[in-house]
Parts: sequence; structure tokens; C-alpha cells
Amino acid sequence: MSSVEQNLVEGNEGYAYLFKQGDLALPPSQKYAVVTCMDARIDPAAAFHIPLGAAHVIRNAGGSVRDAFRSLVISQQLLGTTEVLVVKHTGCGMLIFDDAVAKDLVRKNKGDAAAREVENLDFLTFPDVEDKVRDDVAWLKGKAVEQGIRVTGWVYDVKTGRVKKVV
Amino acid sequence: MSSVEQNLVEGNEGYAYLFKQGDLALPPSQKYAVVTCMDARIDPAAAFHIPLGAAHVIRNAGGSVRDAFRSLVISQQLLGTTEVLVVKHTGCGMLIFDDAVAKDLVRKNKGDAAAREVENLDFLTFPDVEDKVRDDVAWLKGKAVEQGIRVTGWVYDVKTGRVKKVV
Repeated sequence: MSSVEQNLVEGNEGYAYLFKQGDLALPPSQKYAVVTCMDARIDPAAAFHIPLGAAHVIRNAGGSVRDAFRSLVISQQLLGTTEVLVVKHTGCGMLIFDDAVAKDLVRKNKGDAAAREVENLDFLTFPDVEDKVRDDVAWLKGKAVEQGIRVTGWVYDVKTGRVKKVV
Repeated sequence: MSSVEQNLVEGNEGYAYLFKQGDLALPPSQKYAVVTCMDARIDPAAAFHIPLGAAHVIRNAGGSVRDAFRSLVISQQLLGTTEVLVVKHTGCGMLIFDDAVAKDLVRKNKGDAAAREVENLDFLTFPDVEDKVRDDVAWLKGKAVEQGIRVTGWVYDVKTGRVKKVV
């Protein structure tokens, strides 16, 4: 086992020992979903005050709602959520590269076969975080399948731990 | 503001007031990524013992590595992670429907325009969680861009809070 696996097993033992919430229902009790970034500096449950069982939490590079679309449709149509909080953040990695840079890096570091695997990927980078929050919220609101769903957009500051509403 | 937004704002105020980790670096300090489900009953930081800043956390419906592929490539090629923990869980919503059911529901509840938006979606459902963990790990290991990355697969039990290694 790697040290990462060891940390999971040992840390989880303590969690399971104290765990008392085994009776929570599958559908989120507060009927909302959060879409946020995979960034290591974000702890959504703590920073966004999400009680266990309350909300779906969808995370990907950049907190993209396009990337999260499949999950959001399932969250809403199959599991009854009616509200989405889109939370991007300051200092996001998606601000510092673009598709050409990413694809060049893959070719250089991993070779041609790897480059072919990513050649059709849209990495969904963006140059401005607040603009992208507005764009994501507008994109989601434009979908017929999202009619009746409340969607708001936020930015989390990784330096202060504070969220701010954008739209 | 909705009660969900109110909860975010008020809960975040307390978090930000006590926040002291504004100096964490962008790349994950422990160089790993976790792929897990959006399920409301999972708190990855607590259950999988992930210190703030240590790991990317990618979450989607079912904890699919196919859905997470873009994020994983960014995590590895741009931000230097070298290990992936794939953690699915018992009682997953993805076990209880399939594409036909989801698409029928969308058409019935949201109409034809909505149905057209999801007609080409693969909802990535699966009938057995441990089999799907093995399948996801094998799929990822089969990618040229993932060569040199350590990948393991786990199941989290939402009734006991305990993780178990599958592969």
C-alpha cells in the first residue's frame, strides 16, 4: 500500500468508529446540488456548510456546469433537487493554461499515443473567473431540462475562505 | 435569497472567520486525486481523511472515471498528481435506473426540447458497484496518458462509514 492508501485506511478507521449517520436517505434532504472545482484547497462541506445528506456535490476541474451536465440531470430528474449553486474560486488552475499548452505537455511528457487520447478534449479553461460564473449560470439557465431549477453563481476566495455571490 | 443560499452565506461566515489556511499552494501537497460520487451522504474530506490542500477531489454521478477523464488529465499533467483513488459506494443511485428510464422521465416531466438535450447522453449507470470499480480502474490503466499513475479502487459503505479496497 502507498502512503496515500495508508492515510485513507487509517483515517477512515477513526471516521467509521465515530460514524452515526448510516440511516440517511439517498435523495439530498435539502434538495440542492453544488457544482465546484476539484481544487485541493476547497472543502465544500465545511466552507459551504453542507450537512451530511443535504446536497449533491459535483466537482471537476474549474467547476464546469457543462462537464457536470450529466450529473445535474440525474440530480434533478432522478433525485429531486431543484436548486444549483455554481461555486468557482480565485486562483483556479484553469486560468493559467489553455488547450494548446495542455496538449503540448501531454505529447511531450507522455508521447503520441497519449496525445491522441486527449486531442479531442476541450479542457474548458477560462481567462476570468467571475465572467465564467456568469457564463456557466446563463448556459445552464438556457437549457430546457433546467427550467424550474434555481441557479446562482458564486466565487470562493481561497485566501480568505469567503464566498461572494456573483449572479 | 433562498434558504439554501442563506445557509451558504451564514455557514461560510463562520468558516471564513476561523479560516487560517490562506497560504496553501495550488498543486495538491500529497500529489493524489480522489474520484468519488456526488452522493449527499459522502463527505470525502472527513471520511477519506483528506487534509485541506492535499488532494484533488473529483465528484460526479457514480464516481465515473470516464466522466472525470478531463479533470484527471489536468490534475496529472498540469498539477503533478501521480496517484488516483477511485471510491464508489454502496446504495448508489446509479444502480437503480438506466438510460431508457432517465430519458423517459425527462421527456415526461420536461418535454420534447428537454428530451432532445439529453438524447445523446450516456448516463453511465451500472448494475454492480464492485464490478464497476474494477472496470473503471482497468479503463484508466489502459490509457497511455495514465502510464506511471498509480490507480486503486475502493467501495465506501454509506451505512457504516467504512471504506474497503477492491483493487
